[in-house]
Amino acid sequence: MQRDQIKVGLVGFGTVGKGVARILHENAAIIQKRVGLPITLTIVADTDASKKSLLPSSQTSFVTDYKKVVDDPGVDIVIELIGGIEPAKTILLSALKKNKHVVTANKALLAEHGEELYNKANKMGLDIGFEGSVAGGIPIIRILKEGLAANQIESFYGIINGTSNYILTKMTEEKLPFESVLREAQRLGYAEADPTFDIEGIDTAHKLSILITLAFGTQVHFKDIYIEGITQITPLDIEYAREFGFKIKLLAIAKRRGNEIEARVHPTMIHEGEMLASVNGVFNAIYLVGNALGQTLFYGKGAGELPTGSAVVSDLIDIARNILYASSFEPQAPRVRVPLVSFLPQERKDLRIKPIDEIESLYYIRFMVLDNPGVLSHISGILGEHQISISAVIQKGRLAGETVPVVMMTHRSLERNVRQALETIDQLPYVSEKTLTIRVEGEET
Amino acid sequence: MQRDQIKVGLVGFGTVGKGVARILHENAAIIQKRVGLPITLTIVADTDASKKSLLPSSQTSFVTDYKKVVDDPGVDIVIELIGGIEPAKTILLSALKKNKHVVTANKALLAEHGEELYNKANKMGLDIGFEGSVAGGIPIIRILKEGLAANQIESFYGIINGTSNYILTKMTEEKLPFESVLREAQRLGYAEADPTFDIEGIDTAHKLSILITLAFGTQVHFKDIYIEGITQITPLDIEYAREFGFKIKLLAIAKRRGNEIEARVHPTMIHEGEMLASVNGVFNAIYLVGNALGQTLFYGKGAGELPTGSAVVSDLIDIARNILYASSFEPQAPRVRVPLVSFLPQERKDLRIKPIDEIESLYYIRFMVLDNPGVLSHISGILGEHQISISAVIQKGRLAGETVPVVMMTHRSLERNVRQALETIDQLPYVSEKTLTIRVEGEET
Repeated sequence: MQRDQIKVGLVGFGTVGKGVARILHENAAIIQKRVGLPITLTIVADTDASKKSLLPSSQTSFVTDYKKVVDDPGVDIVIELIGGIEPAKTILLSALKKNKHVVTANKALLAEHGEELYNKANKMGLDIGFEGSVAGGIPIIRILKEGLAANQIESFYGIINGTSNYILTKMTEEKLPFESVLREAQRLGYAEADPTFDIEGIDTAHKLSILITLAFGTQVHFKDIYIEGITQITPLDIEYAREFGFKIKLLAIAKRRGNEIEARVHPTMIHEGEMLASVNGVFNAIYLVGNALGQTLFYGKGAGELPTGSAVVSDLIDIARNILYASSFEPQAPRVRVPLVSFLPQERKDLRIKPIDEIESLYYIRFMVLDNPGVLSHISGILGEHQISISAVIQKGRLAGETVPVVMMTHRSLERNVRQALETIDQLPYVSEKTLTIRVEGEET
Repeated sequence: MQRDQIKVGLVGFGTVGKGVARILHENAAIIQKRVGLPITLTIVADTDASKKSLLPSSQTSFVTDYKKVVDDPGVDIVIELIGGIEPAKTILLSALKKNKHVVTANKALLAEHGEELYNKANKMGLDIGFEGSVAGGIPIIRILKEGLAANQIESFYGIINGTSNYILTKMTEEKLPFESVLREAQRLGYAEADPTFDIEGIDTAHKLSILITLAFGTQVHFKDIYIEGITQITPLDIEYAREFGFKIKLLAIAKRRGNEIEARVHPTMIHEGEMLASVNGVFNAIYLVGNALGQTLFYGKGAGELPTGSAVVSDLIDIARNILYASSFEPQAPRVRVPLVSFLPQERKDLRIKPIDEIESLYYIRFMVLDNPGVLSHISGILGEHQISISAVIQKGRLAGETVPVVMMTHRSLERNVRQALETIDQLPYVSEKTLTIRVEGEET
């Protein structure tokens, strides 16, 4: 079969969709130089008919019904960029059924229904590109599937939600409370009108689940991931963290120990000297340890029209190269070169995610207590009964009879013990609000 | 053809060779899960027969004549890890002639004779893997060829020589002179007995030339790269840099403007807030700007048995995946999926490297002068005559009649003007030694 181009159809012409169209148009020459043929956006679907005027090329036709894209016999690759579960899932499954490769940036869908899509694509011998689903400006999917393929991945730590990192950065730099920074972020377009997914850690957990699948060769049941957002963090905690030499970041954490993994998302204190501590604003980064290459860090923009567009187009280039490379294949032969989720389907293994109660960590604990004599010794007594030992205490200002913060850093402790101790402590009459804990990553000092 | 394994032959069983053997052995299970078949090291050649005892697997045979590897009809992929130009070049060309894919980590060979090898491989439809040639622990070759393929690369800045970065880091942290840190690095094995390639910037330039080829789609004539090492840097300059808020790093710099590029290696001052400024010790990093994804940074170990071994094995995995993917191909079909140097051979274009005289930069200039009245005004007068304007001056301590350092920071200036001005200034009777300049990257402040 002699081809003169690779034809692409796109469903969903929002921010990222526009970025994809723009990159395919503006970087057409350089893409053709790298692939050997043009990659042409032949058809775009969006329910909002007014978006037709935003198409950068007159070669592209515009429709309002996604079925026209999926059913178009000329289209080699269908891109889904509408987000959410439905109709995104139906679009991808229908395109696979029509024997088309697909590309998506839909992390929620992959986190919750990825297995069904991977299975369908594997059965059809088709590819699913999802480089745009995590950290658009960092080619982390391809790095895990190819660049680091010789490694057993031991652990990784990611700042992979730009909105929450922007909010924590601003709270740190300008000593402002969460709510006012969130409002500012919404005004600037860095946070959505309903910011729940970002600030509650759900978006981070979606991406964590995709990365774990690739890194460890396991299915992830999304509900097993422990998730805690940033809404409880106050400027006071950021200031205490600074005094201890830490920054507070919303981290996605994954560690493998034998057949068990830790998979959790929560605000975390990390030493200010760590490279992750310097990742500010809407930038993303992933710090990763492999058993051969040691420590690495990948840093870039997390989202946006062009960074995520660049990731989506890198998937198109990869699939286009495979199509061209395989163009002398039997039509029945599989057309996926690199296993969809980095491991062969039959070689994946279910690893158990440790419940949060079973993890061990260092902890920052902030109590709000009435400043009475004996309070400190009572609290530390209860912690001691739960096998929690304290490495540092800060209590500033003394205001007999007033509520003051008392901050403790612990040695390595079991989460279950911390929770049980705090349940008891939070019922004491002189504890005036729910005690806040922030897990600390790093070695004991 | 039904295969049950991919067979690999290795020439050169030094540090990296041992790393490759160890990774193929210890990570065999995970590699097979990702590829679908085992990748087996069947034969190793090294002129030192005593190395046979270091083989991790009894499946591997050992020979002292590399020709037995190249001629072995069972071998699918030949790895060259002996370094240097010959016989490395002959080994790779003979293996290609014998219809085998090849993998190398030989940056000097690729920088100086890469085109001959790429041409031969393209003619044969064979692959050359060289992920191990630059920054072993960072999959930067694959990132440029695939992850960022949708981008026009605009510029990049690399710390890509661990030895010189280790020396500059130690000089900075411990305020020690170059020579004593070099001796310490030699003692610890971080610098070779003859450290010329590392400390004079040649190794960095070899790697820069490979990255430019991939990023910009051009041939690089190695001699056109401007190269300056770190031997002239003193603790005094590092201290002045600190006062201005800078760190000194040996950078590989590449910028593209239309059909011209800058390609240079020299000690460079960068703001201490830049992520590259925090890359310390033997770590490497590459900061890169693409027209779609914006700014990214990739960080990891630069060299060593396992990091570079990991890179070499990632090439084996890539080629193995291609072999399996294409196993139903006609034998005559090309077996390279991604163009060797990121662009199709016919789509590459020769870009001119600007001679160093034509670049513009900010400059740190350290004069050693006799502390006489009028010296400062005379020197700044000469700079002014050459269109060089000064943004800051530091002259500490006054010792009439003694030699003292006078440090100036300039606004953006043309290199040629700086050189001409200094030629004049260095002949003044009260200038007591050759004036030192360090280019400063960053915006005017």
